[in-house]
This record gives sequence, C-alpha cells and structure tokens, in this order.
Amino acid sequence: MNALVYHGPGKRSWEAKPKPIVQKPTDAVVRIEKTTICGTDLHILKGDVPAVTDGRILGHEGVGVVEEVGAGVSNFKKGDRVLISCITSCGKCDACKKGMYSHCADGGWILGHLIDGTQAEYVRIPHADNSLHLVPEGVDEDALVMLSDILPTGFEVGVLNGKVKPGDRVAIVGGGPVGLAALLTAQFYSPAELIMIDLDDNRLAVAKKLGATQCVNSGDGKAVEKVMALTGGKGVDVAIEAVGIPATFDVCQDIVAAGGHLANVGVHGKPVSLKLEKLWIHNVTITTGLVDTNTTPMLLKTVVAGRLQPRQLITHDFRLDDLMKAYDTFANAAKEKALKVIIRRG
Amino acid sequence: MNALVYHGPGKRSWEAKPKPIVQKPTDAVVRIEKTTICGTDLHILKGDVPAVTDGRILGHEGVGVVEEVGAGVSNFKKGDRVLISCITSCGKCDACKKGMYSHCADGGWILGHLIDGTQAEYVRIPHADNSLHLVPEGVDEDALVMLSDILPTGFEVGVLNGKVKPGDRVAIVGGGPVGLAALLTAQFYSPAELIMIDLDDNRLAVAKKLGATQCVNSGDGKAVEKVMALTGGKGVDVAIEAVGIPATFDVCQDIVAAGGHLANVGVHGKPVSLKLEKLWIHNVTITTGLVDTNTTPMLLKTVVAGRLQPRQLITHDFRLDDLMKAYDTFANAAKEKALKVIIRRG
Amino acid sequence: MNALVYHGPGKRSWEAKPKPIVQKPTDAVVRIEKTTICGTDLHILKGDVPAVTDGRILGHEGVGVVEEVGAGVSNFKKGDRVLISCITSCGKCDACKKGMYSHCADGGWILGHLIDGTQAEYVRIPHADNSLHLVPEGVDEDALVMLSDILPTGFEVGVLNGKVKPGDRVAIVGGGPVGLAALLTAQFYSPAELIMIDLDDNRLAVAKKLGATQCVNSGDGKAVEKVMALTGGKGVDVAIEAVGIPATFDVCQDIVAAGGHLANVGVHGKPVSLKLEKLWIHNVTITTGLVDTNTTPMLLKTVVAGRLQPRQLITHDFRLDDLMKAYDTFANAAKEKALKVIIRRG
Amino acid sequence: MNALVYHGPGKRSWEAKPKPIVQKPTDAVVRIEKTTICGTDLHILKGDVPAVTDGRILGHEGVGVVEEVGAGVSNFKKGDRVLISCITSCGKCDACKKGMYSHCADGGWILGHLIDGTQAEYVRIPHADNSLHLVPEGVDEDALVMLSDILPTGFEVGVLNGKVKPGDRVAIVGGGPVGLAALLTAQFYSPAELIMIDLDDNRLAVAKKLGATQCVNSGDGKAVEKVMALTGGKGVDVAIEAVGIPATFDVCQDIVAAGGHLANVGVHGKPVSLKLEKLWIHNVTITTGLVDTNTTPMLLKTVVAGRLQPRQLITHDFRLDDLMKAYDTFANAAKEKALKVIIRRG
Repeated sequence: MNALVYHGPGKRSWEAKPKPIVQKPTDAVVRIEKTTICGTDLHILKGDVPAVTDGRILGHEGVGVVEEVGAGVSNFKKGDRVLISCITSCGKCDACKKGMYSHCADGGWILGHLIDGTQAEYVRIPHADNSLHLVPEGVDEDALVMLSDILPTGFEVGVLNGKVKPGDRVAIVGGGPVGLAALLTAQFYSPAELIMIDLDDNRLAVAKKLGATQCVNSGDGKAVEKVMALTGGKGVDVAIEAVGIPATFDVCQDIVAAGGHLANVGVHGKPVSLKLEKLWIHNVTITTGLVDTNTTPMLLKTVVAGRLQPRQLITHDFRLDDLMKAYDTFANAAKEKALKVIIRRG
Repeated sequence: MNALVYHGPGKRSWEAKPKPIVQKPTDAVVRIEKTTICGTDLHILKGDVPAVTDGRILGHEGVGVVEEVGAGVSNFKKGDRVLISCITSCGKCDACKKGMYSHCADGGWILGHLIDGTQAEYVRIPHADNSLHLVPEGVDEDALVMLSDILPTGFEVGVLNGKVKPGDRVAIVGGGPVGLAALLTAQFYSPAELIMIDLDDNRLAVAKKLGATQCVNSGDGKAVEKVMALTGGKGVDVAIEAVGIPATFDVCQDIVAAGGHLANVGVHGKPVSLKLEKLWIHNVTITTGLVDTNTTPMLLKTVVAGRLQPRQLITHDFRLDDLMKAYDTFANAAKEKALKVIIRRG
Repeated sequence: MNALVYHGPGKRSWEAKPKPIVQKPTDAVVRIEKTTICGTDLHILKGDVPAVTDGRILGHEGVGVVEEVGAGVSNFKKGDRVLISCITSCGKCDACKKGMYSHCADGGWILGHLIDGTQAEYVRIPHADNSLHLVPEGVDEDALVMLSDILPTGFEVGVLNGKVKPGDRVAIVGGGPVGLAALLTAQFYSPAELIMIDLDDNRLAVAKKLGATQCVNSGDGKAVEKVMALTGGKGVDVAIEAVGIPATFDVCQDIVAAGGHLANVGVHGKPVSLKLEKLWIHNVTITTGLVDTNTTPMLLKTVVAGRLQPRQLITHDFRLDDLMKAYDTFANAAKEKALKVIIRRG
Repeated sequence: MNALVYHGPGKRSWEAKPKPIVQKPTDAVVRIEKTTICGTDLHILKGDVPAVTDGRILGHEGVGVVEEVGAGVSNFKKGDRVLISCITSCGKCDACKKGMYSHCADGGWILGHLIDGTQAEYVRIPHADNSLHLVPEGVDEDALVMLSDILPTGFEVGVLNGKVKPGDRVAIVGGGPVGLAALLTAQFYSPAELIMIDLDDNRLAVAKKLGATQCVNSGDGKAVEKVMALTGGKGVDVAIEAVGIPATFDVCQDIVAAGGHLANVGVHGKPVSLKLEKLWIHNVTITTGLVDTNTTPMLLKTVVAGRLQPRQLITHDFRLDDLMKAYDTFANAAKEKALKVIIRRG
C-alpha cells in the first residue's frame, strides 16, 4: 500500500509500505476511507516531536472500513464503518478506568507518533474495541473525520475544562481548527457572549459565521483592552487558550474574571509567567490537558441530532494519493485560507 | 388602588384596596406595569391552598417600577424598572446562604399566598434587595414576566435537577407553561432528542415550534410504548414530570433509562406508587423541588443575549383592569388555546 | 473440586463439580482462598431470584490465587493474589465506559447468579482484567473479602449517592452488613452525626462501636419521632435505606430534611408509596442503584492506609468444607449474632 | 477603649481609641473576648499592604459578645456570643449570591485592612447578619477563634479547591498555621497519604502529631525527589501550596500527578514560572483564591461534633493588654515555636 512517511525534519514522501496486519488479538486493521492533516503533523515535520522517528507513517485521524479483526475484538467486525479516535485506549489500566484515556498505560496518543498512523491506505488500530466508534447510519462521514481529534480536543480541553455555562462570557484566543472546534462546542452550553481573538481577519470572519458574537483582531497588541471594554471591565468567565505561546496565555490570564476559568488547549514549548501576585486572590481555575476522547460517543449523538455540524471546518478536498499536495496547502493555511482539509480514498 | 382579590373558593373580584406602603426598612413598593396569571392561582381559587385566606390579593409574577424603598434597601431606588421574583429571599438565613431561597426562613413563596401579591396596581416586596432584579436596558419586558416564575421553575426544577447534557434524550410530560419553559431551557444544553408528551394536540404543536424533536399524544394511554419505540427500547436519560398526578409520574418512571434522572416539577396532591421493585437496581435519581429563582440572573443574561425567547409563551394580552376577563380565558386554557397571558397596566 | 450448589428453593449441597477452565481468552480461573456468604445468597435459597437455576454454584465474593489466564488477559498472571469483584465488567461496552459496571452488557452481577460462583475451590472469572484487583502487599486478606461486595455497595449506593458531606447529619436505616458498610464508609466524609436505626439491640451495639454517634431502636414504631427529636425537628441531610421494605423506606422519607438525600440501598420486592404530596416542595433527591464496584481501587487504598478496617464486620470463621455449617449460622444471624462469616480454604 | 494601632511600616502601639459605634442599620458592635494575630498582620507591619493606613486598628479574627446592633440586624441581638468572620459579606451583591464573599462589593477582607479591626476592646462589624456566626452552646471559644480565618482558608482554598478525596495522596508545602489548617481539614476526606513539607523540624513534628502520614524537610532542596520516592514515582493527587514564593510553587508543580490538583493558598508577591511545556499534557488543575468563609457553618458543625479540634493550633496565650508582647512572640515564630497565639480579654 501507499502511505505518507516521515523521514526526519522537513522530509516526507508518499511511498509504498507493507500493508499492516493484526499483530495482537485486540488489534483491528482498518482501510482508510477519509483522513486529514493536523497541526501536530506540521510540528512533527519541523522536528518538534523527537519521539517520531524516520520511517513513521503520520496521521491520527480518519474514518474507514474494518478490514480484519483479532480474536479478542468483539465490538467490531469486518465491513463495519468506523471512526478512528486519535487516542488509543486499552480500557483496563488505571487511567482508562477513570476515563483519562490520554494517559492509557498501553495507548494514549500513539497513532502517527509511536506507531504507524492513518495517512495511508490501511492502518492497524491496537485495542480496537475501545479505540474505534461505529459510524452511525446516514451520517456525513466527512464531518466525522473532525471527531477523531479536533472536536473532542476543543470540547474536552477547552469547553468542559473551562466549565462553560449558560449566560457565560467566553473568550477563545486562537481561531485555528481547534479554537473553532471549541467555538462550535461551547455553543452546546448557550453562553451569552463568545468572543474570538485572532490575528487573521479571515479566521475571524469564519468564527463569526460559526457563532462568535464578537471578534477581536489582536494584531495591534490591544486584545486585553478590547476584551475588557466589551465586558464592561469585568473580563470573561471562561478564557480558552488555543495557540500555545506565552503571549496568548498572557491575554488569557489578563482577561479572566474573578471566579473564572482559564482552559489551556495550546501545545506549549516553553514556560509562561503566571501572574500569581495578581491571581492568588482572584479565585481562578487554570486547567491543562491532552484530549481523552471519552466524549466522542456524546459528540456522535450531537452530530446525528444535527446539533453539531463539524463539516463547516472543512475548506479543502484532496484524494489520498494527493496527500503531498494537501500538506502543501495545509502548511500555508493563512495564504490558502485553509482550516481542515479532507482527504478521500478515491 | 385596584386589585384582584380572593374571597374563598370560587370567588374573586377586582376591587379597591389600600395602596401598600413600606413596612420594614428592607421593603420596596413596586408599581406593577405587567403581570400574569399562574396555574397556581387557579389552584388557589379552587380552594386547594388553604393558607390563602379571604381578602388576599393574588399573583406572584410581574415587572414594575420601584415607587418607594425602605432605608435598608441599597440595590434599588425609586424609578428603577424591576423584575419581581415569585420567591422572596432574605439573603441571610441558612437556606438563603445555600441558594435554597424557596426555603427562606422569612420568605419563600409568600407573594399572593401569605401576603398580598402582584395582581394589583402596586405591591409591597419584602427583602427587596434579594427579591427583585433590575430590568436590563432594552429588554422586552413582556418576556421578562415569564422570568418571575415559570422559566426558573422549568429550568431549575426540571432541567438543572434533571442534569440535561449535550446528546441526551429528554422527555417532558406535560406541555403547559412550565413544561414548555423546561422545553425552552433544556435547549441550553443541546440534548439530541426532546420528546414532548401531552394530551392536547394544540400544545404539542406549540412544543414542536418551540424545539421539541418529537411529540407524543398520550390520549391513548400508550405514551410509554411510544417513547420506548422512539428510543430503541432504551428509554430517556431525563424524564421531566410537569403535570402533578400519579399517571404522569408513572409514565416518567417507566421511560427513564438506567442511570437516568426523573425530575419532578408537578405539584402533587397525593402520593404516587414508586416502583422500587424495578427501580432499586436501575441507578436512577429522582428529584423534587420548589423553584429557588437563584438562576434568574443567569436567565436574564440568556434573554439579553437572545439565547432564550420567553415571549413565545405568551398567547393573550389584557389590560390590568380586565384581569377578571383574563382569568376567564386562562381558566379555559385548552379551549382558548391559552398558555400565558400578559396583563399590562394600560 | 467441591462447591456449594443450589438445587432449587430451600436446597443446597456441598458436592463435587468439575473444576472450571478458561473458556474465552479474557477469562481467568482463580483458586479460592477465602469467600463469604451474602444476604443475597439467602434470597436465592428462598427462591426469590428465579434466574438462578438448579445446579448453580453460589457466591460472588472472595479472594484467591490466579490459577490460569486466557491469552487476552494482561493485568494478571498465574500466581497473583486477587480480590474478586462481585460485578463483572467487560470494560468496553457503553455502560462500562461510563463506569456503570452494574449494567455491563456482558457482565454485571453474574457470579453465583447466571454463571457459577465463588463458594467453591475454583471459579472462572470472565473479563478478568476488569473484574479482578491485585491484592496489595501485606494487606489483611480477610478484610479484603469485605471489598468484593458489601463495602462498595454501602459506599457507592449509600454514601456516594447520598452525597455525605463534612458536618452532615446522616441516618442509616438497617444495621446489617451493608448498613454497617455504609456506616464505616460514611466516616470518610466526617459527618457530624451518624444515627443508626435497627430493631436489634445487638446490631445497634455493633454500630455504636463502629462509629454511630446515636442509635435508635425502631421496635416501638417511633423511629421517626426519635430521629426528629435528635435533630431538633429538622431531620437528616442524608437518609440511607439499607433494608428493602416499605416501612423502612417510609422512615427515610419522613426524616429527610429539605434539600436532603435519600439513598436507597435495600433490595425491594414491591412498590413503596412515595409521599409526593409532601415531598414535591421539599427539594429532595432520591437515588437507587446496584453497586458498580468502580470505587474498589479507592477502597483498596483506604484499607492499605488503615483508614478503613473492614475486618470489624467479621463475626465468624469457617473452613471451606464447612460451608454448609456456615450457611446455618449465617441464616440465623440474629440468634448467632452473625454479621459476615469468613470462609477459608484450609 | 484600647487597641493595637498601625502607624506605618514597623510601627505599632497599644493605645486609646474611641469606642466604635453603630454607623449603619446593618452594623453591630462587638466586645472582643478573644482575638489572635495572623501572618497577614506581620505583612502589614512590614509595609507590604499599602492599603492599610496610619492609625488603623489591626486584626480580623475573634470571638466576642454583641454590644449593640443596628435596626436592620435580625440574626443577632445584644448579649449574643459571636464568632467574627475575617470576611465581611453584604449578602446581596452578585458575588455574595454566588457564595464568593471574598469578592463582596461592599465587603470582602476589610477588617483590620480598610476599616478598624478586632485587636481592640470593641469592633464595629458591618453587615453583621452575614458576617457573624452565633457561638454554639458549650463550644471551646479559644478553638473558635481559629475559625475566623485560618481554618476556612486552609479548608476552602486548599482542601476544597484541591478536591481531596478518600484514598488520595496529598502533599502540603508549608507547615505554618494555614498549612496546618489544611492538614487538619484534609482529614475530613480520609486521604491515604498526607505529606507535610517544611524547612522547620519543629513544625514537621507538630504536623506529624496533627495527622501527617509523612514529613519531608525541604532544607536540602530535595523535596521533589523525596516526594516522588514516597509515591512510587507517581506524585501526588493534590499539592497544596501554603507558603507563597516561587520555590514552593515549583515543588508543587513538580510533584502533582497527571490528573491532579494544585491548590495555591500562599499569598504571592511576584509571578512564578509555570512549566506549561511539561504541564500542557498533564491534565492538571491549578486553583487560586482568597477565603470566602462560606464554609464556616459547616466547620462549626464539625467542631461541635468533635471531628475538628482547632485548639491544637494554639501554642501561646496572652491577655489583651499584652498584645504588644504577643506580637513580639508571634513575629519570632520559629524561635518561639509559635503557631497561633490566643489573646483574651482578661
């Protein structure tokens, strides 16, 4: 089969690789029908994730058809259409029993990271029973690809950790795919205000269309003043950080109201300065986390019910054997006005 | 001034009464601009609430203008436009400190019950600082009258006690004003399915318009079978009882799924048979409660933000001095297709 | 091997049965070192649980040594000392993913019920990875047998569902093993008062020793008056029903304070009359449930730390081949002053 | 009357001041029977709290007798023995209605800060109905003085924010009075391990006596390694910071386990470096907060029940007119082995 393979910083190729097989009784092999590219894949390509080694097939998102299952798999059978979770869960370690699949002792984020991933014609999924989800009848499968990673990430790490409530003022710093996923799923809880903050007017326009009540371009370095003005000087009940740099974290800690929540979603490469001299008295809660994907069943229900429409995040469309080109587009997201690209088998 | 006065079972009149005055430093006197009639008022007129005595002015809902405040009132001043809460809260007893205002040691539901109420040109509001809410700039005041009682009742006692979550299956038994208030506010949490059950096709049609995903007419005694069919035999995550008789409570206990919630909102006059021989193993949670109105500030924010539109519950419009006629209409709700009536000063 | 076998209502025998073997890759076979008898076993013997058929080996509690594991078992290996959970959990159905193991699609309470149980020299444990717990180094294994069922039952269904908090007034109706398990574990949360209610002065004396702050003998039918007197007329924050008949449920609904919790633990054979005409306004929460045993890891930590000492519930000691005699004693609990009996291999 | 008066950095005196009077209808004047000194008072004397101006009477803790009440006070009357909360709460602003009294619009921490305090023969208490608590019959009043500030601070900001649960591993960094208050109240929830970390062996010895299961002297800079060794490399479920400097916050962020809580109690004067490059993936929750004292009624119940014995924190005893000497002792806490001093009227 063919796959998108990482060959060290800056190097990727679409090349032939052996088709994966069932290695353990709990494995499934899935034929990829649809996949996508994640910002994390770009980080890998920059060499920021040293655990990814030369020869690794990238990708941790996708929808496909079960090709083969091991003897220990009981929830799925050959021919089932499945959504692949970016997080592998064994279902029987301490972390999994608590629903903290991201810290699974034999899983977590391993696809396209520690084992071969989904940007390929076939992928092996360990612990298939707990790491795949049946595609509901009649659901738009393009939309479902967004449920492999970014929707649960924005929802769990942003919205749920941030405890968004009806009537709340919510600000999201960063209008990339994950920030927009937080924007979509924050609306599950009917906040009164949903302020999107970004540098890119195109992304702000998209945010507006997807439900932001106000948009703030932070290019002038005045995001904090603007948000405080919009909130009568009180700040926001929930600030969601969806970028991953000190400057955006700073915006969040400056706009969160007393008693509020700061939910960090961004992947940070260095420490930030936490203004405890101001915040110690401010009754705030700061959370971090990798996605667990334990809300995927709930998200699937909201998609089936039409309450969540993740297709809105898809801007581009490619065929699997054009994956190299899809990467070119996605890597120039601002210029290409790209959010998520969908990549189909054929 | 004139007021609607109760004179024992079946007897009411629109008659002259002395204008109320500030009796305690924490009182306010409010000029009623808008009020409405509640199902409870009809119960009182039937003689079902013996604590209401001859001569009592009825009514516990309304919007008005502050006419006078006692020396101890600091949140409001003459001329402020205010929403009156159906629950009086002193703010300083054990119950109030826990947010359980319904059990306030010097308040709770007293308006139009133990003291004179809001179906009058003026009303005295004890503990005004904790029992009134400032009308936000530019808000539709007709809609706000719905926030005195029925919206917080449906929301707190139905939706919050029932712990409605995104993706849930929710059934509401009873499409009267409070059931519809639960229907509107359940949508704050984006349930996947919202099933309304009632005997009256008109009310079901209204429910459909207000967001019910399915409607079940229970006139044939087959509500349980129908709901089970709609839910693939699993039942609902949340069943909200908004009628108050054994038959409707029975529907709820028969349709609630394992692990689900049964939130009782209805006012019951007699015991029900709780099927513990089936439910003991079913991991269910049953809740009861009178409204606390501690969510009114949150509801106000959702109205201001346009996420909640309570005006949809208003079907009829009267002037204050036509209150006797308004009662005639409201007492024949089915025939008149009445939900809530709005009653204006002039 | 030998085992305690049910032969229809009233009939049991200690007889030879084939030693169980691994049937599925996820099975383990455990050599029983210690087991016990549960009140439920007596119910089965009365014929109250028709799903239990002639020939079934009884018992769902125990500690043992892993004798053999299937190829799919990874958490345990031959020779491991293990605690057996009364609830079998597959770890991969919807219920298990929510931690509601009692409703596991391929498990739940099946041991000594739908499949052969632990009152035998060996037992087969399906889904071993999620249904066994490693015995911590140096822990008293007699005490651990109490963690198979009654401790998690009292804790989860009584204390956690009842939401016991520091400073609370708590009443437990029924001082049998499960009621006493609730009494022990309620103390995890430092309630101010812990009132035990029972008909048997011996059990009340035990309760006193195990931490009850007050004891009420309900033999005179005046339990409600006594509890109200002890609580200054306010009632209790949490009432735990641990008997399973209408009369004891009635005590609970009569003593629960406004805003309080009624946690039903008892196994009920018929409906109860729920006084909604009084409770609808009382802001109460009523819960039911079968044990999930999802707190067993937490309970194990408290035993290791010495914060929980379940050995106090053991009153009698038998050898495995005296199981018939152990049943005679346990069936005459009041006369024999028996709580839990421990039954050892040899 | 006489009082302890602040006269700018480093200067305090015991001098005559006018006896306070009721200024507003919601005021009470309380005759101080017992008071104490807080670490915050020492900060004020260093000039660290510029809002405190020359001439201010210090102190925000105490027990006394109501001398006079304003016309609007209904919960208390002359002669009542009362516990004074360090936080003044109006009971009617937005923050108070949410139970966040620390951010009361007309209160919060004002005693001995923005208005005259309790280190005096009399004190004026604004919003008395919501800021005083009746002393329960027969309770040790020395112990109660600990409930004015440090017990609710350790409990709310450390234990409740940290979400201590049965079986948890908990570490407290800082064995001063507030850290010890967290140690005492953490035991409400039966953690398995309670590790105290401090530089002072005397304080560690006290901690051991008060319930610490392990003590770590951090003087060698190896606190992190020691805690990791004690926890099998996993770290703690809850880390409570009770010092207020970057080094101790660092210990906390290095020892908190995945999924754990870091509850900051310490008063910080400068920012800390938050290691988001490590923690972003670690599923942690960091909280800050000033005490609300909304748990004081609960704490009172636990004292009455004997579950909490705050007297253990008192090491020294002075008369009110020896307050200057009491300050000398408390300011040399390490040398004097002082924790809390009790200061009595006579």
